[in-house]
Amino acid sequence: MENSEKDMNAEEQPRAIPAPTLRRLPGYLQLLKSRGYAPGSTVSCTVIAQALGLQSIQVRKDLAYTGITGRPKTGYVALELIKAIEDFLGWNNTHDALLFGVGQLGRALLSYNGFRAQGLDIVAGVDCDNAVQRLDVHGKKVIPLSKASSLIRRLHIKIAVITVPASSAQAVCDMAVAAGVKAVWNFAPVQLNVPEGIIVQNENLAASLAVLSKKLNLSLKAS
Amino acid sequence: MENSEKDMNAEEQPRAIPAPTLRRLPGYLQLLKSRGYAPGSTVSCTVIAQALGLQSIQVRKDLAYTGITGRPKTGYVALELIKAIEDFLGWNNTHDALLFGVGQLGRALLSYNGFRAQGLDIVAGVDCDNAVQRLDVHGKKVIPLSKASSLIRRLHIKIAVITVPASSAQAVCDMAVAAGVKAVWNFAPVQLNVPEGIIVQNENLAASLAVLSKKLNLSLKAS
Repeated sequence: MENSEKDMNAEEQPRAIPAPTLRRLPGYLQLLKSRGYAPGSTVSCTVIAQALGLQSIQVRKDLAYTGITGRPKTGYVALELIKAIEDFLGWNNTHDALLFGVGQLGRALLSYNGFRAQGLDIVAGVDCDNAVQRLDVHGKKVIPLSKASSLIRRLHIKIAVITVPASSAQAVCDMAVAAGVKAVWNFAPVQLNVPEGIIVQNENLAASLAVLSKKLNLSLKAS
Repeated sequence: MENSEKDMNAEEQPRAIPAPTLRRLPGYLQLLKSRGYAPGSTVSCTVIAQALGLQSIQVRKDLAYTGITGRPKTGYVALELIKAIEDFLGWNNTHDALLFGVGQLGRALLSYNGFRAQGLDIVAGVDCDNAVQRLDVHGKKVIPLSKASSLIRRLHIKIAVITVPASSAQAVCDMAVAAGVKAVWNFAPVQLNVPEGIIVQNENLAASLAVLSKKLNLSLKAS
């Protein structure tokens, strides 16, 4: 977290946003969108805070980063607030991404359409297995590794989603970065080395599951 | 992270394991399994460390928590090391889980078989939408919410995977805990309130994606 915040602060921007605030914004957006607000209707920090188990003051501070200002007592016009968060997150500008490694997890991510509303469009999968290359995963093509670089260049793809095994993640990352990728969403359980300026966001479901099941085993043993 | 470590230390166990160590163990396991070691062949901390971008001393300390001891120069017998990590993580004891909310993300998780090797077997999905209940997702039944409690009791299900929208996550969590669930893997962007002793592990892909795409937008603007 410390590192992420430092990176953010180093960028040129009017006001650096702390990573925890940034991580909460999608939650606010999902909640607001699920409520189906009519034009002109308002929502307060207190209502948002209660629905999400947060403190009201925390919500107010977080939302201030988007540049919107609430009115005393009434709060925010809900639809304006939704637009402010979306604009701030840049989810109106979709980025194309290429997914490397069409195994179990890769297939799940390829077929999940929810990322599109969050500004990420995975346009195709890449796999070195011939059998997998013949698969279409929910209408998305799977191409061989040898064609990935030229596709990244041709479509100006900026994001690589990496779901290959740990042992091949660095090689795939190097290749994607050399072809022009600027950000890597890494699901492989390995620390990737990247040139300065390249963004890496690590995701580790197996690690979370290890924590969950270890705690559960200890708790079941204790009881 | 601080909280997780405190929770772990509070449990009765021979030696409390730090959460970062616990989170790294699945990565070691994945790497070792991918190498296809023959019986009797050995692997050193240095080899593991290099493959995963870690320090050798860190790997040695982490592995010591599993109770295995390496031999000077040769390291560990690879197959013994794999078994030690699996036993330590409890991935040989599979826990049944029920998944609540068969939307895009829920479907992806239901169809991902990789969790099984990690000790988690999602036996069925739960959804309040009649249309979704008629779906079988990769051979897994989707049952109505009204039948979830009795299924949890009958199968002694200990884990709930929550992929419903933020606004209904607390209600679903309360119901699952009342029926006997001891651990919640929460993918909804909301802080869940649970009774003491119930384990919650939060996962937030949308939040990670927000961090990734915000940094990418800033970096593209700057260049």
